[in-house]
Amino acid sequence: MNIAVIGGHVCSPDIARIAEEAGKGIAELGATLVCGGLSGVMEASCRGAKSAGGKTIGILPGHDKAAANRYVDIPIATGLGYMRNNLVIKNADIVIAIDGKEGTLSEIAFALQMKKPILGIKTWDIPGIIKVKDAQEAIARIKQRG
Amino acid sequence: MNIAVIGGHVCSPDIARIAEEAGKGIAELGATLVCGGLSGVMEASCRGAKSAGGKTIGILPGHDKAAANRYVDIPIATGLGYMRNNLVIKNADIVIAIDGKEGTLSEIAFALQMKKPILGIKTWDIPGIIKVKDAQEAIARIKQRG
Amino acid sequence: MNIAVIGGHVCSPDIARIAEEAGKGIAELGATLVCGGLSGVMEASCRGAKSAGGKTIGILPGHDKAAANRYVDIPIATGLGYMRNNLVIKNADIVIAIDGKEGTLSEIAFALQMKKPILGIKTWDIPGIIKVKDAQEAIARIKQRG
Amino acid sequence: MNIAVIGGHVCSPDIARIAEEAGKGIAELGATLVCGGLSGVMEASCRGAKSAGGKTIGILPGHDKAAANRYVDIPIATGLGYMRNNLVIKNADIVIAIDGKEGTLSEIAFALQMKKPILGIKTWDIPGIIKVKDAQEAIARIKQRG
Repeated sequence: MNIAVIGGHVCSPDIARIAEEAGKGIAELGATLVCGGLSGVMEASCRGAKSAGGKTIGILPGHDKAAANRYVDIPIATGLGYMRNNLVIKNADIVIAIDGKEGTLSEIAFALQMKKPILGIKTWDIPGIIKVKDAQEAIARIKQRG
Repeated sequence: MNIAVIGGHVCSPDIARIAEEAGKGIAELGATLVCGGLSGVMEASCRGAKSAGGKTIGILPGHDKAAANRYVDIPIATGLGYMRNNLVIKNADIVIAIDGKEGTLSEIAFALQMKKPILGIKTWDIPGIIKVKDAQEAIARIKQRG
Repeated sequence: MNIAVIGGHVCSPDIARIAEEAGKGIAELGATLVCGGLSGVMEASCRGAKSAGGKTIGILPGHDKAAANRYVDIPIATGLGYMRNNLVIKNADIVIAIDGKEGTLSEIAFALQMKKPILGIKTWDIPGIIKVKDAQEAIARIKQRG
Repeated sequence: MNIAVIGGHVCSPDIARIAEEAGKGIAELGATLVCGGLSGVMEASCRGAKSAGGKTIGILPGHDKAAANRYVDIPIATGLGYMRNNLVIKNADIVIAIDGKEGTLSEIAFALQMKKPILGIKTWDIPGIIKVKDAQEAIARIKQRG
Protein backbone atom coordinates (compact mmCIF):
# COMPACT_ATOMS: atom_id res chain seq x y z
CA MET A 1 0.00 0.00 0.00
CA ASN A 2 1.17 3.53 -0.85
CA ILE A 3 0.19 6.45 1.39
CA ALA A 4 0.82 9.98 0.13
CA VAL A 5 1.70 12.82 2.47
CA ILE A 6 0.97 16.20 0.90
CA GLY A 7 1.75 19.67 2.20
CA GLY A 8 3.86 22.71 1.53
CA HIS A 9 7.56 22.89 0.73
CA VAL A 10 7.84 25.44 3.55
CA CYS A 11 6.30 24.76 6.96
CA SER A 12 6.53 25.64 10.65
CA PRO A 13 8.35 23.39 13.15
CA ASP A 14 4.97 22.28 14.53
CA ILE A 15 3.76 21.18 11.12
CA ALA A 16 7.09 19.47 10.43
CA ARG A 17 6.66 17.48 13.66
CA ILE A 18 3.21 16.32 12.56
CA ALA A 19 4.55 15.38 9.12
CA GLU A 20 7.40 13.45 10.68
CA GLU A 21 5.00 11.53 12.92
CA ALA A 22 2.78 10.77 9.95
CA GLY A 23 5.77 9.41 8.03
CA LYS A 24 6.81 7.27 10.99
CA GLY A 25 3.29 5.93 11.33
CA ILE A 26 3.14 5.07 7.62
CA ALA A 27 6.37 3.09 7.90
CA GLU A 28 5.07 1.29 10.98
CA LEU A 29 1.96 0.29 9.02
CA GLY A 30 4.32 -1.34 6.51
CA ALA A 31 3.17 1.08 3.81
CA THR A 32 5.31 3.03 1.33
CA LEU A 33 5.30 6.81 1.64
CA VAL A 34 4.75 8.78 -1.58
CA CYS A 35 5.33 12.52 -1.72
CA GLY A 36 6.52 15.34 -3.93
CA GLY A 37 10.13 14.71 -2.93
CA LEU A 38 11.12 18.24 -1.92
CA SER A 39 11.43 20.18 1.37
CA GLY A 40 9.00 21.14 4.14
CA VAL A 41 6.22 18.65 4.85
CA MET A 42 7.62 16.34 2.17
CA GLU A 43 11.07 16.14 3.75
CA ALA A 44 9.78 15.88 7.32
CA SER A 45 7.46 13.00 6.44
CA CYS A 46 10.25 11.14 4.62
CA ARG A 47 12.55 11.63 7.60
CA GLY A 48 9.89 10.14 9.83
CA ALA A 49 9.39 7.16 7.53
CA LYS A 50 13.12 6.45 7.34
CA SER A 51 13.46 6.69 11.15
CA ALA A 52 11.13 3.69 11.31
CA GLY A 53 12.80 1.77 8.46
CA GLY A 54 10.14 2.66 5.87
CA LYS A 55 10.36 3.15 2.13
CA THR A 56 9.90 6.54 0.47
CA ILE A 57 9.10 7.63 -3.09
CA GLY A 58 9.53 11.27 -4.16
CA ILE A 59 7.82 12.35 -7.38
CA LEU A 60 9.66 15.50 -8.37
CA PRO A 61 8.55 18.49 -10.46
CA GLY A 62 11.92 18.96 -12.14
CA HIS A 63 14.14 17.13 -14.60
CA ASP A 64 16.79 15.95 -12.15
CA LYS A 65 16.34 13.14 -9.67
CA ALA A 66 19.18 14.58 -7.59
CA ALA A 67 16.81 17.34 -6.41
CA ALA A 68 15.05 14.98 -4.00
CA ASN A 69 15.48 15.47 -0.27
CA ARG A 70 17.96 13.13 1.40
CA TYR A 71 15.26 10.88 2.88
CA VAL A 72 13.82 9.86 -0.49
CA ASP A 73 14.73 6.29 -1.46
CA ILE A 74 13.21 6.36 -4.93
CA PRO A 75 13.32 9.76 -6.60
CA ILE A 76 11.28 10.05 -9.80
CA ALA A 77 12.05 13.08 -11.97
CA THR A 78 9.12 14.17 -14.12
CA GLY A 79 9.78 17.60 -15.62
CA LEU A 80 6.03 18.17 -15.27
CA GLY A 81 6.19 21.11 -12.87
CA TYR A 82 3.07 21.28 -10.73
CA MET A 83 1.33 18.75 -12.96
CA ARG A 84 3.37 16.20 -11.03
CA ASN A 85 0.94 16.80 -8.16
CA ASN A 86 -1.47 14.63 -10.11
CA LEU A 87 1.10 11.81 -10.19
CA VAL A 88 1.65 11.98 -6.43
CA ILE A 89 -2.06 11.30 -5.94
CA LYS A 90 -2.28 8.74 -8.76
CA ASN A 91 0.34 6.64 -6.97
CA ALA A 92 -1.35 6.77 -3.56
CA ASP A 93 -4.01 4.48 -2.16
CA ILE A 94 -4.69 6.89 0.71
CA VAL A 95 -3.73 10.55 1.12
CA ILE A 96 -2.81 12.52 4.26
CA ALA A 97 -2.91 16.31 3.77
CA ILE A 98 -1.02 18.42 6.33
CA ASP A 99 -1.23 22.20 6.18
CA GLY A 100 -0.28 23.41 2.69
CA LYS A 101 -1.19 26.10 0.19
CA GLU A 102 -2.32 26.14 -3.44
CA GLY A 103 -0.18 23.18 -4.50
CA THR A 104 -1.70 21.11 -1.73
CA LEU A 105 -5.16 22.30 -2.75
CA SER A 106 -4.58 20.98 -6.27
CA GLU A 107 -3.58 17.62 -4.79
CA ILE A 108 -6.70 17.57 -2.59
CA ALA A 109 -8.79 18.28 -5.70
CA PHE A 110 -7.15 15.43 -7.59
CA ALA A 111 -7.60 13.06 -4.62
CA LEU A 112 -11.32 13.87 -4.48
CA GLN A 113 -11.59 13.45 -8.24
CA MET A 114 -9.90 10.03 -8.12
CA LYS A 115 -12.09 9.12 -5.14
CA LYS A 116 -9.11 8.33 -2.92
CA PRO A 117 -9.64 8.56 0.86
CA ILE A 118 -8.10 11.77 2.14
CA LEU A 119 -7.36 12.61 5.75
CA GLY A 120 -6.69 16.25 6.62
CA ILE A 121 -4.64 17.73 9.46
CA LYS A 122 -4.74 21.55 9.83
CA THR A 123 -5.30 21.88 6.11
CA TRP A 124 -7.86 23.25 3.61
CA ASP A 125 -11.49 22.91 4.70
CA ILE A 126 -12.93 21.12 1.67
CA PRO A 127 -15.97 18.80 1.80
CA GLY A 128 -14.87 15.19 1.37
CA ILE A 129 -11.74 15.51 3.51
CA ILE A 130 -11.86 13.37 6.68
CA LYS A 131 -10.69 15.86 9.31
CA VAL A 132 -8.35 14.47 11.98
CA LYS A 133 -6.54 16.33 14.76
CA ASP A 134 -3.06 14.86 14.42
CA ALA A 135 -0.85 12.23 12.81
CA GLN A 136 -1.72 9.61 15.43
CA GLU A 137 -5.41 9.91 14.64
CA ALA A 138 -4.72 9.75 10.89
CA ILE A 139 -2.73 6.54 11.29
CA ALA A 140 -5.36 5.06 13.64
CA ARG A 141 -8.06 5.77 11.08
CA ILE A 142 -6.03 4.07 8.34
CA LYS A 143 -5.46 1.03 10.59
CA GLN A 144 -9.22 0.77 11.20
CA ARG A 145 -9.90 0.72 7.46
CA GLY A 146 -7.76 -2.45 7.36
CA MET B 1 -5.76 38.30 -24.22
CA ASN B 2 -6.97 34.82 -23.30
CA ILE B 3 -9.72 34.39 -20.71
CA ALA B 4 -10.43 30.91 -19.37
CA VAL B 5 -13.89 29.79 -18.35
CA ILE B 6 -13.76 26.82 -16.00
CA GLY B 7 -16.62 24.74 -14.63
CA GLY B 8 -18.13 21.27 -14.73
CA HIS B 9 -18.86 19.12 -17.77
CA VAL B 10 -22.39 18.74 -16.40
CA CYS B 11 -24.38 21.77 -15.25
CA SER B 12 -27.89 23.09 -14.68
CA PRO B 13 -29.66 25.29 -17.26
CA ASP B 14 -29.12 28.29 -14.96
CA ILE B 15 -25.39 27.72 -14.81
CA ALA B 16 -25.29 27.13 -18.58
CA ARG B 17 -26.97 30.52 -19.08
CA ILE B 18 -24.32 32.22 -16.94
CA ALA B 19 -21.54 30.42 -18.83
CA GLU B 20 -23.04 31.44 -22.15
CA GLU B 21 -23.21 35.08 -21.05
CA ALA B 22 -19.61 34.93 -19.86
CA GLY B 23 -18.51 33.54 -23.23
CA LYS B 24 -20.44 36.25 -25.06
CA GLY B 25 -18.86 38.93 -22.85
CA ILE B 26 -15.38 37.56 -23.47
CA ALA B 27 -15.92 37.74 -27.23
CA GLU B 28 -17.24 41.30 -26.91
CA LEU B 29 -14.07 42.25 -25.05
CA GLY B 30 -12.13 41.01 -28.07
CA ALA B 31 -10.50 38.29 -25.98
CA THR B 32 -10.05 34.62 -26.85
CA LEU B 33 -11.92 32.08 -24.72
CA VAL B 34 -9.89 29.13 -23.41
CA CYS B 35 -11.59 26.13 -21.83
CA GLY B 36 -11.39 22.38 -21.41
CA GLY B 37 -13.24 21.85 -24.69
CA LEU B 38 -15.94 19.45 -23.49
CA SER B 39 -19.62 19.75 -22.43
CA GLY B 40 -21.47 21.66 -19.69
CA VAL B 41 -19.98 25.01 -18.71
CA MET B 42 -17.27 24.58 -21.34
CA GLU B 43 -19.72 24.11 -24.20
CA ALA B 44 -22.12 26.83 -23.02
CA SER B 45 -19.33 29.38 -22.75
CA CYS B 46 -18.01 28.50 -26.22
CA ARG B 47 -21.54 28.81 -27.64
CA GLY B 48 -21.79 32.26 -26.12
CA ALA B 49 -18.44 33.33 -27.51
CA LYS B 50 -19.31 32.12 -30.99
CA SER B 51 -22.68 33.92 -30.87
CA ALA B 52 -20.70 37.16 -30.61
CA GLY B 53 -18.13 36.21 -33.25
CA GLY B 54 -15.41 35.32 -30.74
CA LYS B 55 -12.58 32.79 -30.91
CA THR B 56 -12.48 29.64 -28.77
CA ILE B 57 -9.70 27.24 -27.77
CA GLY B 58 -10.55 23.87 -26.18
CA ILE B 59 -7.71 22.05 -24.40
CA LEU B 60 -8.91 18.46 -24.26
CA PRO B 61 -8.04 15.65 -21.83
CA GLY B 62 -8.05 12.94 -24.49
CA HIS B 63 -6.03 11.95 -27.52
CA ASP B 64 -8.51 12.99 -30.20
CA LYS B 65 -9.20 16.57 -31.19
CA ALA B 66 -12.57 15.46 -32.61
CA ALA B 67 -13.86 15.17 -29.03
CA ALA B 68 -14.23 18.96 -28.69
CA ASN B 69 -17.68 20.48 -28.50
CA ARG B 70 -18.96 22.03 -31.73
CA TYR B 71 -18.26 25.60 -30.64
CA VAL B 72 -14.52 25.08 -30.25
CA ASP B 73 -12.50 26.69 -33.06
CA ILE B 74 -9.10 25.40 -32.00
CA PRO B 75 -9.21 21.99 -30.32
CA ILE B 76 -5.95 20.88 -28.71
CA ALA B 77 -5.72 17.18 -27.83
CA THR B 78 -3.36 16.46 -24.94
CA GLY B 79 -3.82 12.90 -23.71
CA LEU B 80 -3.01 14.29 -20.27
CA GLY B 81 -6.33 13.45 -18.61
CA TYR B 82 -7.06 15.84 -15.76
CA MET B 83 -3.49 17.17 -15.87
CA ARG B 84 -4.73 19.18 -18.83
CA ASN B 85 -6.50 21.39 -16.28
CA ASN B 86 -3.09 22.89 -15.63
CA LEU B 87 -2.73 23.76 -19.33
CA VAL B 88 -6.12 25.49 -19.41
CA ILE B 89 -4.92 27.84 -16.67
CA LYS B 90 -1.40 28.20 -18.12
CA ASN B 91 -2.92 29.56 -21.31
CA ALA B 92 -5.20 32.07 -19.61
CA ASP B 93 -4.44 35.63 -18.56
CA ILE B 94 -7.62 35.78 -16.45
CA VAL B 95 -9.87 32.98 -15.20
CA ILE B 96 -13.64 32.92 -14.65
CA ALA B 97 -14.83 29.98 -12.51
CA ILE B 98 -18.52 29.10 -12.72
CA ASP B 99 -19.95 26.39 -10.47
CA GLY B 100 -17.92 23.18 -10.86
CA LYS B 101 -16.68 20.28 -8.79
CA GLU B 102 -13.28 18.72 -8.09
CA GLY B 103 -11.89 19.35 -11.57
CA THR B 104 -12.75 23.01 -11.25
CA LEU B 105 -11.17 23.06 -7.80
CA SER B 106 -7.90 21.81 -9.27
CA GLU B 107 -8.05 24.62 -11.83
CA ILE B 108 -8.72 27.19 -9.13
CA ALA B 109 -5.71 25.87 -7.23
CA PHE B 110 -3.50 26.16 -10.30
CA ALA B 111 -4.78 29.69 -11.02
CA LEU B 112 -3.91 30.79 -7.49
CA GLN B 113 -0.53 29.11 -7.76
CA MET B 114 0.24 30.89 -11.03
CA LYS B 115 -1.06 34.14 -9.52
CA LYS B 116 -3.63 34.65 -12.27
CA PRO B 117 -6.68 36.79 -11.42
CA ILE B 118 -9.66 34.54 -10.83
CA LEU B 119 -13.30 35.63 -10.71
CA GLY B 120 -15.81 33.22 -9.20
CA ILE B 121 -19.54 32.87 -9.87
CA LYS B 122 -21.45 30.39 -7.66
CA THR B 123 -18.30 28.32 -7.29
CA TRP B 124 -15.89 27.07 -4.58
CA ASP B 125 -15.34 29.47 -1.69
CA ILE B 126 -11.55 29.69 -1.70
CA PRO B 127 -9.57 32.70 -0.45
CA GLY B 128 -8.08 34.58 -3.38
CA ILE B 129 -11.10 34.20 -5.65
CA ILE B 130 -12.79 37.52 -6.50
CA LYS B 131 -16.46 36.70 -5.91
CA VAL B 132 -18.90 38.18 -8.42
CA LYS B 133 -22.64 37.60 -8.70
CA ASP B 134 -23.00 36.97 -12.41
CA ALA B 135 -21.32 37.02 -15.82
CA GLN B 136 -22.06 40.72 -16.36
CA GLU B 137 -20.21 41.65 -13.19
CA ALA B 138 -17.28 39.40 -14.12
CA ILE B 139 -16.94 41.05 -17.53
CA ALA B 140 -17.33 44.54 -16.00
CA ARG B 141 -14.52 43.77 -13.54
CA ILE B 142 -12.27 42.59 -16.36
CA LYS B 143 -13.04 45.75 -18.36
CA GLN B 144 -12.08 47.89 -15.34
CA ARG B 145 -8.71 46.14 -15.10
CA GLY B 146 -8.03 47.36 -18.64
CA MET C 1 -7.22 19.58 -41.39
CA ASN C 2 -4.07 20.18 -39.33
CA ILE C 3 -0.65 19.61 -40.86
CA ALA C 4 2.41 19.60 -38.59
CA VAL C 5 5.78 20.83 -39.73
CA ILE C 6 8.59 19.45 -37.58
CA GLY C 7 12.28 20.26 -37.65
CA GLY C 8 15.04 21.87 -35.64
CA HIS C 9 14.98 25.20 -33.81
CA VAL C 10 18.20 26.02 -35.63
CA CYS C 11 18.51 25.50 -39.39
CA SER C 12 20.39 26.65 -42.50
CA PRO C 13 18.93 29.25 -44.88
CA ASP C 14 18.24 26.46 -47.41
CA ILE C 15 16.23 24.46 -44.89
CA ALA C 16 14.41 27.62 -43.78
CA ARG C 17 13.39 28.24 -47.40
CA ILE C 18 11.97 24.72 -47.67
CA ALA C 19 10.10 25.16 -44.39
CA GLU C 20 8.68 28.48 -45.54
CA GLU C 21 7.47 26.92 -48.79
CA ALA C 22 5.90 24.06 -46.88
CA GLY C 23 4.07 26.50 -44.63
CA LYS C 24 2.85 28.48 -47.64
CA GLY C 25 1.63 25.29 -49.30
CA ILE C 26 -0.22 24.22 -46.16
CA ALA C 27 -2.03 27.56 -46.04
CA GLU C 28 -2.91 27.28 -49.75
CA LEU C 29 -4.42 23.86 -49.06
CA GLY C 30 -6.68 25.57 -46.52
CA ALA C 31 -5.12 23.56 -43.70
CA THR C 32 -3.94 24.78 -40.30
CA LEU C 33 -0.21 24.56 -39.57
CA VAL C 34 0.77 23.00 -36.24
CA CYS C 35 4.32 23.22 -34.94
CA GLY C 36 6.42 23.54 -31.82
CA GLY C 37 6.10 27.33 -31.89
CA LEU C 38 9.77 28.28 -31.60
CA SER C 39 12.57 29.30 -34.02
CA GLY C 40 14.25 27.65 -37.02
CA VAL C 41 12.05 25.35 -39.10
CA MET C 42 9.08 26.17 -36.86
CA GLU C 43 9.34 29.92 -37.40
CA ALA C 44 10.09 29.65 -41.13
CA SER C 45 7.07 27.42 -41.74
CA CYS C 46 4.80 29.76 -39.77
CA ARG C 47 6.09 32.74 -41.73
CA GLY C 48 5.28 30.90 -44.95
CA ALA C 49 1.78 30.03 -43.76
CA LYS C 50 1.06 33.62 -42.72
CA SER C 51 2.35 34.95 -46.08
CA ALA C 52 -0.49 33.00 -47.68
CA GLY C 53 -3.11 33.98 -45.10
CA GLY C 54 -3.01 30.68 -43.24
CA LYS C 55 -3.58 29.83 -39.58
CA THR C 56 -0.78 28.68 -37.27
CA ILE C 57 -0.74 26.87 -33.92
CA GLY C 58 2.45 26.70 -31.84
CA ILE C 59 2.58 24.11 -29.06
CA LEU C 60 5.33 25.36 -26.80
CA PRO C 61 7.61 23.49 -24.38
CA GLY C 62 7.59 26.25 -21.77
CA HIS C 63 5.17 27.87 -19.36
CA ASP C 64 4.72 31.16 -21.19
CA LYS C 65 2.71 31.62 -24.37
CA ALA C 66 4.70 34.80 -25.09
CA ALA C 67 7.66 32.60 -26.10
CA ALA C 68 6.07 31.75 -29.45
CA ASN C 69 7.58 33.11 -32.65
CA ARG C 70 5.80 36.14 -34.11
CA TYR C 71 4.05 34.13 -36.83
CA VAL C 72 2.14 31.92 -34.40
CA ASP C 73 -1.57 32.82 -34.20
CA ILE C 74 -2.47 30.42 -31.43
CA PRO C 75 0.33 29.80 -28.95
CA ILE C 76 -0.31 26.96 -26.48
CA ALA C 77 2.00 26.89 -23.46
CA THR C 78 2.46 23.40 -22.01
CA GLY C 79 5.34 23.38 -19.52
CA LEU C 80 5.97 19.82 -20.74
CA GLY C 81 9.46 20.39 -22.13
CA TYR C 82 10.23 17.95 -24.92
CA MET C 83 7.17 15.89 -24.03
CA ARG C 84 5.27 18.55 -25.93
CA ASN C 85 6.64 16.94 -29.09
CA ASN C 86 4.00 14.28 -28.53
CA LEU C 87 1.27 16.94 -28.50
CA VAL C 88 2.49 18.47 -31.77
CA ILE C 89 1.97 15.09 -33.46
CA LYS C 90 -1.28 14.34 -31.61
CA ASN C 91 -2.79 17.48 -33.07
CA ALA C 92 -1.72 16.78 -36.64
CA ASP C 93 -3.51 14.78 -39.31
CA ILE C 94 -0.41 14.71 -41.50
CA VAL C 95 3.23 15.44 -40.62
CA ILE C 96 6.00 17.01 -42.73
CA ALA C 97 9.51 16.49 -41.30
CA ILE C 98 12.23 18.81 -42.56
CA ASP C 99 15.84 18.28 -41.47
CA GLY C 100 15.99 18.17 -37.66
CA LYS C 101 17.90 16.42 -34.91
CA GLU C 102 16.93 14.36 -31.86
CA GLY C 103 13.79 16.34 -31.08
CA THR C 104 12.56 15.79 -34.61
CA LEU C 105 13.44 12.10 -34.30
CA SER C 106 11.19 11.83 -31.26
CA GLU C 107 8.36 13.45 -33.25
CA ILE C 108 8.92 11.05 -36.16
CA ALA C 109 8.74 8.16 -33.69
CA PHE C 110 5.46 9.45 -32.24
CA ALA C 111 4.02 10.00 -35.74
CA LEU C 112 4.83 6.40 -36.71
CA GLN C 113 3.39 5.17 -33.42
CA MET C 114 0.14 7.09 -33.96
CA LYS C 115 0.08 5.86 -37.58
CA LYS C 116 -0.05 9.37 -39.00
CA PRO C 117 1.23 9.87 -42.57
CA ILE C 118 4.68 11.43 -42.45
CA LEU C 119 6.49 13.04 -45.36
CA GLY C 120 10.22 13.64 -44.99
CA ILE C 121 12.44 16.24 -46.65
CA LYS C 122 16.21 15.93 -46.00
CA THR C 123 15.49 14.37 -42.62
CA TRP C 124 16.09 11.15 -40.69
CA ASP C 125 16.06 7.98 -42.78
CA ILE C 126 13.51 5.93 -40.89
CA PRO C 127 11.31 3.24 -42.46
CA GLY C 128 7.74 4.46 -42.73
CA ILE C 129 8.63 8.02 -43.75
CA ILE C 130 7.47 8.92 -47.27
CA LYS C 131 10.59 10.56 -48.72
CA VAL C 132 10.01 13.61 -50.87
CA LYS C 133 12.57 15.95 -52.43
CA ASP C 134 11.08 19.32 -51.54
CA ALA C 135 8.10 21.22 -50.15
CA GLN C 136 6.31 21.29 -53.50
CA GLU C 137 6.37 17.51 -53.74
CA ALA C 138 5.18 17.19 -50.13
CA ILE C 139 2.21 19.45 -50.79
CA ALA C 140 1.43 17.70 -54.10
CA ARG C 141 1.40 14.35 -52.29
CA ILE C 142 -0.99 15.70 -49.67
CA LYS C 143 -3.27 17.10 -52.38
CA GLN C 144 -3.37 13.67 -54.09
CA ARG C 145 -4.48 12.03 -50.83
CA GLY C 146 -7.54 14.30 -50.98
CA MET D 1 22.81 4.50 -10.40
CA ASN D 2 19.73 3.87 -12.52
CA ILE D 3 20.02 1.95 -15.80
CA ALA D 4 17.05 1.92 -18.16
CA VAL D 5 16.26 -1.05 -20.37
CA ILE D 6 14.06 -0.06 -23.29
CA GLY D 7 12.43 -2.25 -25.93
CA GLY D 8 9.09 -3.49 -27.18
CA HIS D 9 6.17 -4.81 -25.16
CA VAL D 10 6.18 -7.80 -27.50
CA CYS D 11 9.42 -9.65 -28.30
CA SER D 12 10.84 -12.99 -29.46
CA PRO D 13 12.23 -15.56 -26.99
CA ASP D 14 15.76 -14.65 -28.16
CA ILE D 15 15.24 -10.98 -27.41
CA ALA D 16 13.63 -11.84 -24.07
CA ARG D 17 16.72 -13.85 -23.15
CA ILE D 18 18.97 -10.87 -23.93
CA ALA D 19 16.72 -8.56 -21.90
CA GLU D 20 16.77 -10.98 -18.98
CA GLU D 21 20.57 -11.15 -19.07
CA ALA D 22 20.77 -7.36 -19.20
CA GLY D 23 18.50 -7.08 -16.17
CA LYS D 24 20.59 -9.64 -14.28
CA GLY D 25 23.77 -7.77 -15.16
CA ILE D 26 22.30 -4.47 -13.98
CA ALA D 27 21.42 -6.01 -10.63
CA GLU D 28 24.91 -7.49 -10.31
CA LEU D 29 26.36 -4.01 -10.90
CA GLY D 30 24.33 -2.85 -7.90
CA ALA D 31 22.29 -0.52 -10.11
CA THR D 32 18.52 -0.03 -10.16
CA LEU D 33 16.67 -1.05 -13.33
CA VAL D 34 14.21 1.48 -14.75
CA CYS D 35 11.78 0.51 -17.49
CA GLY D 36 8.29 1.12 -18.82
CA GLY D 37 6.85 -1.49 -16.46
CA LEU D 38 4.89 -3.58 -18.98
CA SER D 39 5.47 -6.84 -20.89
CA GLY D 40 8.05 -8.03 -23.44
CA VAL D 41 11.56 -6.61 -23.02
CA MET D 42 10.41 -4.67 -19.95
CA GLU D 43 9.17 -7.78 -18.13
CA ALA D 44 12.10 -9.96 -19.16
CA SER D 45 14.64 -7.42 -17.94
CA CYS D 46 12.82 -7.02 -14.62
CA ARG D 47 12.71 -10.80 -14.19
CA GLY D 48 16.45 -10.92 -14.76
CA ALA D 49 17.09 -8.14 -12.25
CA LYS D 50 14.96 -9.83 -9.59
CA SER D 51 16.72 -13.19 -10.19
CA ALA D 52 19.90 -11.46 -9.00
CA GLY D 53 18.28 -9.62 -6.10
CA GLY D 54 18.10 -6.26 -7.89
CA LYS D 55 15.64 -3.40 -7.60
CA THR D 56 13.21 -2.48 -10.40
CA ILE D 57 11.18 0.65 -11.19
CA GLY D 58 8.39 0.55 -13.79
CA ILE D 59 7.14 3.89 -15.12
CA LEU D 60 3.74 3.05 -16.55
CA PRO D 61 1.72 4.77 -19.30
CA GLY D 62 -1.64 4.24 -17.59
CA HIS D 63 -3.43 5.47 -14.48
CA ASP D 64 -3.17 2.27 -12.42
CA LYS D 65 -0.01 1.07 -10.74
CA ALA D 66 -1.48 -2.46 -10.68
CA ALA D 67 -0.77 -2.71 -14.43
CA ALA D 68 2.96 -3.27 -13.82
CA ASN D 69 4.49 -6.67 -14.56
CA ARG D 70 5.04 -8.89 -11.52
CA TYR D 71 8.79 -8.20 -11.37
CA VAL D 72 8.40 -4.45 -10.83
CA ASP D 73 9.19 -3.41 -7.24
CA ILE D 74 8.22 0.24 -7.62
CA PRO D 75 5.42 0.86 -10.10
CA ILE D 76 4.81 4.51 -10.97
CA ALA D 77 1.50 5.26 -12.71
CA THR D 78 1.63 8.36 -14.89
CA GLY D 79 -1.46 8.51 -17.13
CA LEU D 80 0.84 10.12 -19.70
CA GLY D 81 0.51 7.43 -22.39
CA TYR D 82 3.60 7.31 -24.57
CA MET D 83 4.84 10.60 -23.11
CA ARG D 84 5.95 8.45 -20.19
CA ASN D 85 8.77 7.27 -22.45
CA ASN D 86 10.40 10.60 -21.70
CA LEU D 87 10.20 9.88 -17.95
CA VAL D 88 11.83 6.47 -18.36
CA ILE D 89 14.85 8.17 -19.92
CA LYS D 90 14.79 11.12 -17.51
CA ASN D 91 15.22 8.71 -14.62
CA ALA D 92 18.11 6.78 -16.16
CA ASP D 93 21.83 7.49 -15.97
CA ILE D 94 22.56 5.00 -18.75
CA VAL D 95 20.21 3.40 -21.29
CA ILE D 96 20.30 -0.06 -22.87
CA ALA D 97 18.07 -0.39 -25.97
CA ILE D 98 17.16 -3.92 -27.05
CA ASP D 99 15.17 -4.48 -30.25
CA GLY D 100 12.00 -2.38 -30.16
CA LYS D 101 9.78 -0.41 -32.51
CA GLU D 102 8.49 3.17 -32.62
CA GLY D 103 8.11 3.51 -28.84
CA THR D 104 11.72 2.49 -28.40
CA LEU D 105 12.75 4.92 -31.14
CA SER D 106 11.13 7.78 -29.20
CA GLU D 107 13.10 6.73 -26.11
CA ILE D 108 16.34 6.58 -28.11
CA ALA D 109 15.60 10.10 -29.38
CA PHE D 110 15.02 11.38 -25.84
CA ALA D 111 18.21 9.67 -24.60
CA LEU D 112 20.25 11.36 -27.33
CA GLN D 113 18.56 14.68 -26.57
CA MET D 114 19.36 14.39 -22.87
CA LYS D 115 22.91 13.30 -23.76
CA LYS D 116 22.64 10.05 -21.81
CA PRO D 117 24.93 7.18 -22.87
CA ILE D 118 22.93 4.64 -24.85
CA LEU D 119 24.01 1.11 -25.68
CA GLY D 120 22.09 -0.70 -28.42
CA ILE D 121 21.57 -4.44 -28.94
CA LYS D 122 19.81 -5.49 -32.20
CA THR D 123 17.92 -2.19 -32.20
CA TRP D 124 17.48 0.94 -34.36
CA ASP D 125 20.60 2.06 -36.23
CA ILE D 126 20.82 5.66 -35.10
CA PRO D 127 24.06 7.68 -34.89
CA GLY D 128 25.02 8.17 -31.27
CA ILE D 129 24.04 4.68 -30.12
CA ILE D 130 26.99 2.57 -28.92
CA LYS D 131 26.37 -0.73 -30.71
CA VAL D 132 27.08 -3.85 -28.68
CA LYS D 133 26.44 -7.48 -29.62
CA ASP D 134 24.80 -8.77 -26.47
CA ALA D 135 23.90 -8.09 -22.84
CA GLN D 136 27.29 -9.22 -21.56
CA GLU D 137 29.08 -6.67 -23.72
CA ALA D 138 26.65 -3.93 -22.65
CA ILE D 139 27.29 -4.66 -18.97
CA ALA D 140 31.06 -4.90 -19.54
CA ARG D 141 31.02 -1.50 -21.23
CA ILE D 142 29.11 0.01 -18.32
CA LYS D 143 31.60 -1.51 -15.84
CA GLN D 144 34.49 0.04 -17.79
CA ARG D 145 32.89 3.48 -17.54
CA GLY D 146 33.13 3.06 -13.78
